[in-house]
Amino acid sequence: MRNIKLTIEYSGTQFSGWQVQPDKRTVQGEIEKALKIIFKKKIRINGSGRTDSGVHAAGQVANFKVNSKMPCAEMVRAMNGNLAEDITILSALDVSPDFHAQFSAKRKTYRYSIFNRPTRPALNAGYLLWVQNSINLNRIKKEARDLVGKHDFKSLTATDPAKNDQYPDKSTVRTIYEITVKKSGPLITIDITANGFLYKMVRNIVGVLLDVGTGRIPTGSVKSILKAKSRPAARETAPACGLSLMEVCYHPSKFCCLYTAHKSKDFR
Amino acid sequence: MRNIKLTIEYSGTQFSGWQVQPDKRTVQGEIEKALKIIFKKKIRINGSGRTDSGVHAAGQVANFKVNSKMPCAEMVRAMNGNLAEDITILSALDVSPDFHAQFSAKRKTYRYSIFNRPTRPALNAGYLLWVQNSINLNRIKKEARDLVGKHDFKSLTATDPAKNDQYPDKSTVRTIYEITVKKSGPLITIDITANGFLYKMVRNIVGVLLDVGTGRIPTGSVKSILKAKSRPAARETAPACGLSLMEVCYHPSKFCCLYTAHKSKDFR
Repeated sequence: MRNIKLTIEYSGTQFSGWQVQPDKRTVQGEIEKALKIIFKKKIRINGSGRTDSGVHAAGQVANFKVNSKMPCAEMVRAMNGNLAEDITILSALDVSPDFHAQFSAKRKTYRYSIFNRPTRPALNAGYLLWVQNSINLNRIKKEARDLVGKHDFKSLTATDPAKNDQYPDKSTVRTIYEITVKKSGPLITIDITANGFLYKMVRNIVGVLLDVGTGRIPTGSVKSILKAKSRPAARETAPACGLSLMEVCYHPSKFCCLYTAHKSKDFR
Repeated sequence: MRNIKLTIEYSGTQFSGWQVQPDKRTVQGEIEKALKIIFKKKIRINGSGRTDSGVHAAGQVANFKVNSKMPCAEMVRAMNGNLAEDITILSALDVSPDFHAQFSAKRKTYRYSIFNRPTRPALNAGYLLWVQNSINLNRIKKEARDLVGKHDFKSLTATDPAKNDQYPDKSTVRTIYEITVKKSGPLITIDITANGFLYKMVRNIVGVLLDVGTGRIPTGSVKSILKAKSRPAARETAPACGLSLMEVCYHPSKFCCLYTAHKSKDFR
């Protein structure tokens, strides 16, 4: 059995999120349909994590097991040929049998994109949160520092409504390695890298940072929200459209190309 | 009568271009509908030029005459409140009575965006031309130099199918001031600034530059194509989706804020 690692790009607008759900168009569901056509059998894929309805991805990762001699580059072409225009398989790569897209993940980076201008964006509107009121970037940058490090993010998560939660979050402690806030014209991006994210954690963090940035709540709010360890202490959840999963990283020496980098070329 | 200059952003995907056409959704048509609601009368707007179906704009300019005391900032809000999400009025400004968005224009900049990667883009797909084959940027940059300057662009235009062509192009001579080719990851942008553009000129230029960049035709092709002064000498027209009108410039001392910059603040 080969173990194949996929890197996937998708525009979340027309999907009911990542996870397979009956009678809904989901990213996992569409990829599994394509695999069924190609390999003539039902193949289940493991995603690095679920993304919500409307959330985009530039570098989602998934893996699946298959008994086939098809080269990776051909898999990429066959899958893209059987997928709609809003999902693209960027690469397929043979990896070690113990690689699991979720459990082997060491860190993830999400980006939240904000368009800060008096008038709404007509271009790329599905990828942006429009914020009309002036945002003070320095306040956001300063506030973001209080989120970096190992914290209990209980105040900044939400109860996951999915009934079939395969891997319920037991601990609400996570480590944020880095938050990078950048501005280019009206576009503000907030990149957050952590060892893992709780349900709606990025969108809740962005909700708080935006309230600090627009002056609705004082600086120092993050500290008291984290300390409260209860959801009502936090603010509104930022909408899904501004969020993109940018990258999922795995321990390089253990999982990357261990098994067949030489056998089957990474098609990236 | 006041003369109002509008700066307009739109996503061209859902429009049959700029110019009003019976039973079609056009940018001019939608803006005129909004003006009719606001001012309770039919108002005709002059665009700086027509854009084709599918072409986007980050800085289209139009003007219209109106007898009203409404402040410009209120016009912007009222218009955006009466427009769909794919058109945004960025600013309204009182200008000199002799300002005409088309005839007063001194230069325009168009951007063509290309996504050069083996796999198709799932993100922002409506704003990009996907080119699978490897593009040699230096060949494009070098070739673009032969387009800069005053030339007869007859080989790089097309017959305009619009029957009601208000301002048919008599001369096919134009001056390109600058072509800037940039690359950021898989995204290649070609910005072209000229004193004016013929029908489909940018898309025909990009068609030729891409053929040079991918090696389908030799470097030096631009010179012979320009010299031929006939359309069949040129190559395929690049599709509309990659094209955006970025900016229209007017002589600053004559038209910008001449009349009421102090009366009615530019809402930008």
